Amino acid sequence: MPTTHHFRPTHYHHTIGSHEPVLTIADGDTVVTTTIDAFGRDEDDAQAAPRGNPMVGPFYVQGAEAGDGLAFHIERITPNRKVGRIFTALAANTVLPEYTGQLPERGEGEFRLDLDEGTATLIHPTTQLGTFSVPIQPMIGCFGVAPVRGQFISTLTSGEFGGNMDYRGFAAGVTVYFPVFMPGALVHLGDVHAWQADGEILGTGIEVSAEVQFSVRVLKSQKIGTVRGENETHIFTAGNARPLDQALQIATTEMDAWLRQAYGLDARSAGLLLGHYVQYEVGNVFDPAYTMICKLPKTALAAFRKV
Amino acid sequence: MPTTHHFRPTHYHHTIGSHEPVLTIADGDTVVTTTIDAFGRDEDDAQAAPRGNPMVGPFYVQGAEAGDGLAFHIERITPNRKVGRIFTALAANTVLPEYTGQLPERGEGEFRLDLDEGTATLIHPTTQLGTFSVPIQPMIGCFGVAPVRGQFISTLTSGEFGGNMDYRGFAAGVTVYFPVFMPGALVHLGDVHAWQADGEILGTGIEVSAEVQFSVRVLKSQKIGTVRGENETHIFTAGNARPLDQALQIATTEMDAWLRQAYGLDARSAGLLLGHYVQYEVGNVFDPAYTMICKLPKTALAAFRKV
Amino acid sequence: MPTTHHFRPTHYHHTIGSHEPVLTIADGDTVVTTTIDAFGRDEDDAQAAPRGNPMVGPFYVQGAEAGDGLAFHIERITPNRKVGRIFTALAANTVLPEYTGQLPERGEGEFRLDLDEGTATLIHPTTQLGTFSVPIQPMIGCFGVAPVRGQFISTLTSGEFGGNMDYRGFAAGVTVYFPVFMPGALVHLGDVHAWQADGEILGTGIEVSAEVQFSVRVLKSQKIGTVRGENETHIFTAGNARPLDQALQIATTEMDAWLRQAYGLDARSAGLLLGHYVQYEVGNVFDPAYTMICKLPKTALAAFRKV
Amino acid sequence: MPTTHHFRPTHYHHTIGSHEPVLTIADGDTVVTTTIDAFGRDEDDAQAAPRGNPMVGPFYVQGAEAGDGLAFHIERITPNRKVGRIFTALAANTVLPEYTGQLPERGEGEFRLDLDEGTATLIHPTTQLGTFSVPIQPMIGCFGVAPVRGQFISTLTSGEFGGNMDYRGFAAGVTVYFPVFMPGALVHLGDVHAWQADGEILGTGIEVSAEVQFSVRVLKSQKIGTVRGENETHIFTAGNARPLDQALQIATTEMDAWLRQAYGLDARSAGLLLGHYVQYEVGNVFDPAYTMICKLPKTALAAFRKV
Repeated sequence: MPTTHHFRPTHYHHTIGSHEPVLTIADGDTVVTTTIDAFGRDEDDAQAAPRGNPMVGPFYVQGAEAGDGLAFHIERITPNRKVGRIFTALAANTVLPEYTGQLPERGEGEFRLDLDEGTATLIHPTTQLGTFSVPIQPMIGCFGVAPVRGQFISTLTSGEFGGNMDYRGFAAGVTVYFPVFMPGALVHLGDVHAWQADGEILGTGIEVSAEVQFSVRVLKSQKIGTVRGENETHIFTAGNARPLDQALQIATTEMDAWLRQAYGLDARSAGLLLGHYVQYEVGNVFDPAYTMICKLPKTALAAFRKV
Repeated sequence: MPTTHHFRPTHYHHTIGSHEPVLTIADGDTVVTTTIDAFGRDEDDAQAAPRGNPMVGPFYVQGAEAGDGLAFHIERITPNRKVGRIFTALAANTVLPEYTGQLPERGEGEFRLDLDEGTATLIHPTTQLGTFSVPIQPMIGCFGVAPVRGQFISTLTSGEFGGNMDYRGFAAGVTVYFPVFMPGALVHLGDVHAWQADGEILGTGIEVSAEVQFSVRVLKSQKIGTVRGENETHIFTAGNARPLDQALQIATTEMDAWLRQAYGLDARSAGLLLGHYVQYEVGNVFDPAYTMICKLPKTALAAFRKV
Repeated sequence: MPTTHHFRPTHYHHTIGSHEPVLTIADGDTVVTTTIDAFGRDEDDAQAAPRGNPMVGPFYVQGAEAGDGLAFHIERITPNRKVGRIFTALAANTVLPEYTGQLPERGEGEFRLDLDEGTATLIHPTTQLGTFSVPIQPMIGCFGVAPVRGQFISTLTSGEFGGNMDYRGFAAGVTVYFPVFMPGALVHLGDVHAWQADGEILGTGIEVSAEVQFSVRVLKSQKIGTVRGENETHIFTAGNARPLDQALQIATTEMDAWLRQAYGLDARSAGLLLGHYVQYEVGNVFDPAYTMICKLPKTALAAFRKV
Repeated sequence: MPTTHHFRPTHYHHTIGSHEPVLTIADGDTVVTTTIDAFGRDEDDAQAAPRGNPMVGPFYVQGAEAGDGLAFHIERITPNRKVGRIFTALAANTVLPEYTGQLPERGEGEFRLDLDEGTATLIHPTTQLGTFSVPIQPMIGCFGVAPVRGQFISTLTSGEFGGNMDYRGFAAGVTVYFPVFMPGALVHLGDVHAWQADGEILGTGIEVSAEVQFSVRVLKSQKIGTVRGENETHIFTAGNARPLDQALQIATTEMDAWLRQAYGLDARSAGLLLGHYVQYEVGNVFDPAYTMICKLPKTALAAFRKV
């Protein structure tokens, strides 16, 4: 019977890789854990680890082996403190090279989170924006499984194993599908944002510590090339690379392959379905690898039976 | 008093440039014209011009001079025949290089348009998709003004003058803002799609001839760097370049400049506003220049007064 | 019998396109003409045209038709004044976005050319470089034929028709092969540099007016995809696009096709020959389209007979 | 006193990272070791490790700490068997997407090495190239130091720590400078090529096992951003990233910083020196990260004293 584990981390990792597991969980289990923010600060706003996307985990999922898929269902993301932090200037790489001189100095700013109201309000710096509030819509910025070849990869970047994708669609209710490369899959997570627009063009969302609840399922022998996901309305794939063109190629290729694999569509049919319904979203254009999302509305798929 | 011109083209251009005007119109005027499809076929499905995005125009707008802006309001786009044509395979550049061998041969396909029902149904080729219908949501694939320096630029590509952007957001109700480079602005248009998803990854939308109604306004001394637009809910900018990274840089730069210029925001404020609300959309990733859209919801702007 | 034309331009173009020819020449003829520099200054350092790569021409080559090739042989490039001008700072796009703040302001500088010694010496600005001299090795920065579709394209950029490639290999002794798109080919040239390193990373070479002597040959029905060339030691192709990756793809594709076409090599043989001997050079990484050169030493080709 | 170590590997790594050192060496020491080829085959052509650039090492260099530089001098690279292996078709990403269908199937081919003559001759497949021989000019395809953050990174890719750069300039006589990230630097090496052109566009050089002799020096507190090198005639930097544009930006930035740091040049002087003498070379355009080399001839530096 599925178990719900309550896990309290005592240390964090700045790479995603084949670290010593902190907990072994079974196929179907749920985990409730705390995460600290990208700056390494915890729910008391104390420095619990160095900056740079410290991760909780890894969680070892029994039965997960190389060649399987892992379904990671985000059940809940609850910020657990009142201060959220941001960078305060557009990242240099998001504007034309000759325009970078127009950007202000990058500093750090603060939002105050009202968790009852579900809003975050800019406290610092002072701007011309008046009272500047955004809704709290938490997402996980960085999470994934141990990469192929026993790699340990910085939590500043991403790949087909997941990582620092900074896509606002990784919110509660989403199921993410990772390829499994190493025994136990070895799930890492952290870097929650209370709010983020497309592209993470400031270089941050509103960075916050949180409580995260997720569950896992092992998909035996499920061939997955790179990160996939689904929510109530869409299925999607994530391409992580530079330039964005390549990220888009990865995401589109994965979606085309998924349509053929999951629905038994031939090449012509998969291409026409995709070509008439595809939507693209930009995860981040800040990290070393950019993230492009390729989405398909489930309504477009309703007519086709899964094989 | 503004006039409505009914214009019936007799010839077409395959470049956007300083061609002899076909009609002179006044600031504020409306034009109703027919357009032929990207393959050069007209409302009778007769070959009226060679393939490759033949354009109607140019329309000379009185009073428009280099350094002005031109507001081009799309009032109506009505497909005027029952057959729409497509390419039938994903374009090679939208998937990973090593996956191109998995793509089917590119052919041409046909949709039958039911203009009353507002749907288009795939007639050919035969696929596993069963009855495959999409809504008719017409857009202009290619339009713009004569480019800087007296250039004549192929209607297969795009730039800060507009051109072949293939963005599905260029639909009725949208106002597009072009920089004016040449006397009279010299408006060209064509390449209507009855439907297109993001990216134009097949290399076509559903290509169709149409009747288009638009109006123009001259914005004296309005400094515009590249294509801008707005609809009921958003303002947006279009970056046209390769790679997508550069298209995104162009669009983001233009939006940041627009926020400072139109709302008097300082660099810090503009960046924070943009950073927390930006949305990106992919116009096309098929043409020589790709198109990235940078959007901002008008709700995010409601608090700020235009200067 | 081939004629040598002495041509003295009276006006200049800032696009390459189907302008009115200034002179009609026969297949095999030679032209001696003056050119003005990229800033529009002539041999007396007088402003003869606006800045931005003003071109001499076009020269109409009798017998050249769309589908032919044009061999353009650079016989001599002789700077004809003593002052050469440069930009004085690395272009923003040649360094990492976060490093652009380290670059000095871009200004204009001057070299003094000693045409007898064959050296150019920096006069202004004052630097820590002491007496800073470079050899005079003249090249043509921008030249080409009227583009496909009747386009007129800015002399700031380039394409398969040539244009602003800013490759230091376009020097005396080189034969350049252009595809012919328009009747008469319509040859333009200008933008001579007395010296330039790879990449044109300052945004200029040492810009100078010059006397240029070239001859042309029509290659009937010679299928050329994009700019090709050869000198005493190498054959090469030029890919003009962004990003550099695409420029490299264009150049490599053209070279592979050339090997198959000219030497009758099958796909395997052409690929292996190219794969073991290819050399790449960077033309410019400053202009809207970058230029990548794909070279093959003639020694590698010596064993294979032209078909 | 410097020692020469003769090391015989017993196991290999497919990542570069903080593996258990196989040998501790002192600042100034020399190592003579064997390496196996990219396919994992040793001097007897026996499978000694799985495919994919298995590395020898790591070698722990006493005294090397994070923030130092490591000088790695390649003294000798001697292929130690007679068979070299290649891929036999251009990689899909090196040609235009729409041209990939023209490429032959990728297979493996063989060269026979004549170590006395210094030539390698194609044995298989049979081609139209007749007797196809290339000179043996050995280089190291993949080598580097343990990356920052304790990462373990696949030997198929590269970064500022080195890795799979596949640049033919990494030959005997070259000194390579790496930034040190981890205690002891942790040197890895392997993937020797008997011959390779620019770009590694087949996806291989002529892959061979070898005996390699190198020496190391610790450069205390020498600030290095990414891989640097020098040989008798040039200093150079290596940018490892995609697209090539970013690789070029990294390499150019590093060279500009180096000029300022090592020669005390101000921003203007460094930029002008670089702008007039820079040469670019393409390492590889096959691996996940491409490699661009930024070179400067030592003759151009002769006038400036190192600080």
